[in-house]
Amino acid sequence: MKIAVLGTGRVARMIGGGLATAGHHIVFASRNPAQQSGLPAPAAEAISAVGDADVVVDAIPGAAVMDALSMLGPAALAGKILMEVANDLSPNFELNYPNASLGAAVQEAFPQTLVVKTLNTVQAPLMGNPSGLPSPSTVFLAGNDAVAKSTVSTLLAALGWDPGWQIDLGDISQARATEHFIFLSFAIAQSLNTTNVNIAVIR
Amino acid sequence: MKIAVLGTGRVARMIGGGLATAGHHIVFASRNPAQQSGLPAPAAEAISAVGDADVVVDAIPGAAVMDALSMLGPAALAGKILMEVANDLSPNFELNYPNASLGAAVQEAFPQTLVVKTLNTVQAPLMGNPSGLPSPSTVFLAGNDAVAKSTVSTLLAALGWDPGWQIDLGDISQARATEHFIFLSFAIAQSLNTTNVNIAVIR
Repeated sequence: MKIAVLGTGRVARMIGGGLATAGHHIVFASRNPAQQSGLPAPAAEAISAVGDADVVVDAIPGAAVMDALSMLGPAALAGKILMEVANDLSPNFELNYPNASLGAAVQEAFPQTLVVKTLNTVQAPLMGNPSGLPSPSTVFLAGNDAVAKSTVSTLLAALGWDPGWQIDLGDISQARATEHFIFLSFAIAQSLNTTNVNIAVIR
Repeated sequence: MKIAVLGTGRVARMIGGGLATAGHHIVFASRNPAQQSGLPAPAAEAISAVGDADVVVDAIPGAAVMDALSMLGPAALAGKILMEVANDLSPNFELNYPNASLGAAVQEAFPQTLVVKTLNTVQAPLMGNPSGLPSPSTVFLAGNDAVAKSTVSTLLAALGWDPGWQIDLGDISQARATEHFIFLSFAIAQSLNTTNVNIAVIR
């Protein structure tokens, strides 16, 4: 698959690198592609990277997502699957969308884009290496389009997330559920003093 | 231990019944103790039940907690351990304390009470029966007083929560972390169509 990754930080490199290793065609979207180095795949101007892509991975820090997507514009993102993995916290560590979600806000702002919220409950080091834990843990998906979720599910599997470890929570309004988990995610990591940790759903 | 349980609903009966079975002295605090039937332990007037208790279990629906505790008054609750297990949602299913928590608000309103937030991430049927799942799952604690948390930890163990399944998240401000989990908890139960489900922290 042709995949554009928005962002060049730790999360972007983890996901982009994992998907490149799995054989997908990755391009990092950058404002300064010539100045990027050390990326696990080539960089290109954002509008060009996104234009060629089947799937766009939004791996920008949460608070910058809306501005970055707006600069690309709805036309560039129309018809694309947007795998949206951000958590949106204010500088004083509060949810910028309390009782709501960035994922649903992005879907509302870009109605022709197929937004799938996922991976935002997972610590960055595990995103592309879920087998780093001693037993299976869980990743969630939320989105309005079943085909888009199925495509994202395939990409998660390519990153090591066995389909049996994936739980589809429903439509994009359920991004609220996973985004509100951020406080418990941080509290667990802080209490246990490790980011090599995740939750598993036990039934 | 002498334990007063505030509330007579499903959660109150589950916790009170479990602790009574474990040999603790349970009294349900009620406005109409003579009219209660089918409880797993006796009922008494709230002020009398709380007055005799070492530990008070707050198992009232979240939105009613502040009013109920205020009717008891700070003096009745001073020096008591308050095991606070509520989630506080509005009728339209939004957090009444977004970016904050009922647990911390109760601690602030009752500074002489030793508030310990726990069990609020767990589905009611599992609270007193955590072994009902095929593998261990996790329960969290948050509170300012280490001795109070240790006492609550003992009570959780009496309910079947092995100490190794308990995670102390820190002070009462971490009630925010577990209360914000409510949306994910509901989404998981809805997606899997069961309340016989919990999360386990995998490290």
